[in-house]
Amino acid sequence: MNIFVCIRLTSEQTSRLQKALPEQNLLFHPALESDPAARDAIDSCQIVFGNPLASWIADSPVLSWVQLESVGYGEYTDLDWLKLSTRVQMTNLAGFFSEPVAESILAGILSHYRGMSCLSNLQANRKWLGDELRPLLKTLHGAQIVLFGKGDINRRVAELLEPFRCAIQSFGRNWQRPELQNALSKADIVICTVPDSPSTRGVFDRNLIGSIKVGSLFVNFGRGSLIDEAALAEALESNHLSGAVIDVTKDAPLPPDHRFWACPNLLLTQHTGGGTADEIDRKIDFFLANFDRRQRKEPLHRSVDFMKGK
Amino acid sequence: MNIFVCIRLTSEQTSRLQKALPEQNLLFHPALESDPAARDAIDSCQIVFGNPLASWIADSPVLSWVQLESVGYGEYTDLDWLKLSTRVQMTNLAGFFSEPVAESILAGILSHYRGMSCLSNLQANRKWLGDELRPLLKTLHGAQIVLFGKGDINRRVAELLEPFRCAIQSFGRNWQRPELQNALSKADIVICTVPDSPSTRGVFDRNLIGSIKVGSLFVNFGRGSLIDEAALAEALESNHLSGAVIDVTKDAPLPPDHRFWACPNLLLTQHTGGGTADEIDRKIDFFLANFDRRQRKEPLHRSVDFMKGK
Repeated sequence: MNIFVCIRLTSEQTSRLQKALPEQNLLFHPALESDPAARDAIDSCQIVFGNPLASWIADSPVLSWVQLESVGYGEYTDLDWLKLSTRVQMTNLAGFFSEPVAESILAGILSHYRGMSCLSNLQANRKWLGDELRPLLKTLHGAQIVLFGKGDINRRVAELLEPFRCAIQSFGRNWQRPELQNALSKADIVICTVPDSPSTRGVFDRNLIGSIKVGSLFVNFGRGSLIDEAALAEALESNHLSGAVIDVTKDAPLPPDHRFWACPNLLLTQHTGGGTADEIDRKIDFFLANFDRRQRKEPLHRSVDFMKGK
Repeated sequence: MNIFVCIRLTSEQTSRLQKALPEQNLLFHPALESDPAARDAIDSCQIVFGNPLASWIADSPVLSWVQLESVGYGEYTDLDWLKLSTRVQMTNLAGFFSEPVAESILAGILSHYRGMSCLSNLQANRKWLGDELRPLLKTLHGAQIVLFGKGDINRRVAELLEPFRCAIQSFGRNWQRPELQNALSKADIVICTVPDSPSTRGVFDRNLIGSIKVGSLFVNFGRGSLIDEAALAEALESNHLSGAVIDVTKDAPLPPDHRFWACPNLLLTQHTGGGTADEIDRKIDFFLANFDRRQRKEPLHRSVDFMKGK
């Protein structure tokens, strides 16, 4: 069987995968578009490990399974899954990143509340402000929080927040605008962790951002398509929002002239939220476990249902 | 009665204190040493609110109560309390800062684990590294932690760490060197929150710092006198320790030529750990409540016992 591998691996990880699948023919093409042979190679493969271009999946004649290396699958939602799902199954890594992402979210919030970015910048300039900074700091204890998204990540965020005795309101798939606006108008912190999908694109438009309480902190670790980036930048520049922690942007890497680079009190975490030292090895573990299930004709873990949008 | 006030107040806070104590004569001298009239003024006072010079307390003829504006009282431990305690009582703010300090400690740890200082520096240079950073990040979940100090702050730290399911070992007043060294040799994170006292000075000497596990993160939010600063700097420069979060230093402000400014992976939080927007107002609340107790001849809260060293 031919397996198309478009995930970036070290030589150790490459040989680990090869040793684990000695009877399979692994075709490594991590560079995708910039690799002229990749397009032809995928057409001969039954399985993909990694995130190929969406159009390649649609046209691939023998493909039957794609194991994504991400939770997000927004780039594939526009394919004709009504037709495609009869022959191709897609699995993602839902839940895989909830611990590191939730920890990055809390890191970003506490950094903002306890002045860490400011302190780090002062240190770079060997400047000691000390006592002058103390009145600018806040405590998270008892804060009003809106969680937008009820998936694994925000569930873990809620667990990490428990000792802080925050007042938390969560909004899932069936959120209603009046209730959400009401909650946002009282929120000290808004934490968004929803995937890209037709129903989440542009939800945080100028109007909804405008309804957030003055002085709030806005956190987005889902997908950049959720928000109107210009409206968020304006809310920070006008001091309507006291800060933002942004892991995901519509374009990544962020273009050099993007307003976010210089937005006051905006921390860009550069889509590192899910990162850990053993991330790729754990992805290989996950793929191999699903591969074994496939060989035993068992249901694969974390199958994406494009009809339901999850 | 004359009350010497050497805490920095806004004009609103000054008038709030005056209105709350209409029958008392308040003498405001926040500048202390650089205020030529301060030394004479304190000699006429029965009460001090704030942290005066230690020598002034020893010589002050009518003084009977000092309400410190800090938890720390290390600068007063060398006074002759055996004699002094018959006429002067000192109260501190023990417990007052445990929430903000514990939150700053967790902020510092998570910032280190999730790369926040690095991300903030990259952003200042409009540099996007993204995926390259992910393998450098760690999760706090399940980490081995040594808490040195069993007071209010570390108790709150332990509560905040609960959802991370860390393995925590705590050491209080009766710590033994072999047990501590053994714990340090396995610790991912060492968190120190002990006050300055004859028994804590220099405890983390070159030898004890040398016994900490390679790659650990060292956190000190107690007092700078606990550690050999040169040995800590070397441990960071040699990559024995992966990082440090340092709120307290022997000298504050830190001298411009101090090694800590440029130590790799050391974050200086500039003794802001206890800071909150309402800090001074809460200090005034605490002083006024203790003043009322004194007027009613009730025991004062948070009396410092220099014989026991707590």
